[in-house]
Amino acid sequence: MTRKELIDHIGEKRSFLCVGLDTDIRKFPPCILEKAGDNAYEAIMAFNKAIVDATAPYCVAYKPNTAFYEAFGTEGWRALADTFAYIRANHPRHFIIADAKRGDIGNTSAMYARAFFNDLDADALTVAPYMGSDSVKPFLGFDGKWVILLALTSNPGSMDFQLTEDKDGSRLFEKVIRESSTWATPEEMMYVVGATRGEMFRDIRRCAPDSFLLVPGVGAQGGSLEEVCRYGMTDDCGLLVNSSRAIIYASSGEDFAQAAAEAAKAVAGQMADFLGTYSKI
Amino acid sequence: MTRKELIDHIGEKRSFLCVGLDTDIRKFPPCILEKAGDNAYEAIMAFNKAIVDATAPYCVAYKPNTAFYEAFGTEGWRALADTFAYIRANHPRHFIIADAKRGDIGNTSAMYARAFFNDLDADALTVAPYMGSDSVKPFLGFDGKWVILLALTSNPGSMDFQLTEDKDGSRLFEKVIRESSTWATPEEMMYVVGATRGEMFRDIRRCAPDSFLLVPGVGAQGGSLEEVCRYGMTDDCGLLVNSSRAIIYASSGEDFAQAAAEAAKAVAGQMADFLGTYSKI
Repeated sequence: MTRKELIDHIGEKRSFLCVGLDTDIRKFPPCILEKAGDNAYEAIMAFNKAIVDATAPYCVAYKPNTAFYEAFGTEGWRALADTFAYIRANHPRHFIIADAKRGDIGNTSAMYARAFFNDLDADALTVAPYMGSDSVKPFLGFDGKWVILLALTSNPGSMDFQLTEDKDGSRLFEKVIRESSTWATPEEMMYVVGATRGEMFRDIRRCAPDSFLLVPGVGAQGGSLEEVCRYGMTDDCGLLVNSSRAIIYASSGEDFAQAAAEAAKAVAGQMADFLGTYSKI
Repeated sequence: MTRKELIDHIGEKRSFLCVGLDTDIRKFPPCILEKAGDNAYEAIMAFNKAIVDATAPYCVAYKPNTAFYEAFGTEGWRALADTFAYIRANHPRHFIIADAKRGDIGNTSAMYARAFFNDLDADALTVAPYMGSDSVKPFLGFDGKWVILLALTSNPGSMDFQLTEDKDGSRLFEKVIRESSTWATPEEMMYVVGATRGEMFRDIRRCAPDSFLLVPGVGAQGGSLEEVCRYGMTDDCGLLVNSSRAIIYASSGEDFAQAAAEAAKAVAGQMADFLGTYSKI
């Protein structure tokens, strides 16, 4: 998907919500589990299809988190592939992010690119920057595909290394953004920036004025959507804000899909206001 | 597997070789491909079983690289799981490393731990440090299981961020080792240190005097085994040196398994000499 297609979708829908499919069977509504019996594949697919169909009117992106599928082995991987295919077939305008945080030496990253861009047909893949340029570049150059590079994450451990200052006073996450900006354009690279430090978005925008940012940490992790938008939004939005647990587990009753839709709709309502205030789309 | 069991195996076999199963169908001998037809699972399993059985006398560890399996989707993941099971059943003393370079926020890392330690029964998992302590700790505390944390990798891009000096002159890879040493003991954490910079092992041993190091980059990537041993070996060895392509693709003829065995045997012969010179086992 091109940047323009993504922005057009955000503009029409008045939402920049990404729904994270951190699909955890242990949190599934009993009605799903009863129907699927002990078939993990059936349970995951029934849950994901219901959540996706219910939330699609209020979001522009989905982000399956690969860990939750790998935990179920071969059947989990099949559910991951079929979830991608289901979204692609039924909601073709939605941007699909494989949240896999991959990154390895060149020939290995090239294999991951094949897995996620060719086999699963993801629009984007999250990538870890620790191994540097030749671990990231094999993911670039796929038509309409995106790298989303970890910059400043939303978890407490982000303070361990990402904030380390070098001799010139640059923090590691800033160095990651600056260096990687020479590898790719804002048409093919985004950054992960956690919502838990809203004021940091000012610093991020100094390094990456035009890039889209994928923002986890609103909702269960406590970040403020208002601060993210005030400091991080650009004229053409430039944000995809993810929410996982607060939406997909909004209810554990038979109304779980309806509750997810309502939770997504509520966030999208706030987003429409912020788009009016801080963007030009 | 405990540290003592690993060291005992190295001592008896006079080898600290890890064979990397970067199993790439495009490089398979024609005899394998002809027999398997277009069945990727059958081809991967036939190749891996032959390589593992042929090289087992000369190595102490195997390292399937998950990217190469994920590239074949569900069938690839099944081949990954069955490769783990095959090694476990037929070569139970061998240490099995899932080279997956995972790492994510706490609840996600916990799901990856479940995938690799419970479902695949790996002895160890490679983990990326960028997201800090709470992305690594969920992999700790599994009885006999190991985290192998990326410190200084063997690829050119390792220079982009891993060598960045902070205000006190510590490089990022040194900070990663020092910080993470407070999270886990050398009984449950190793480090990835590339062989391509032999002299760096002196600096590594200042930060991690007792830890095992997993060392890629000997062979196809050009590192010197002698330098790695001179600067990196400890009294109880403390090294697992990986070779992938130079062993598993030693021949593309019908003798591919025999050629792999000979390549592994040659490396093991050198290793026996270095164990005599630099270790006490």
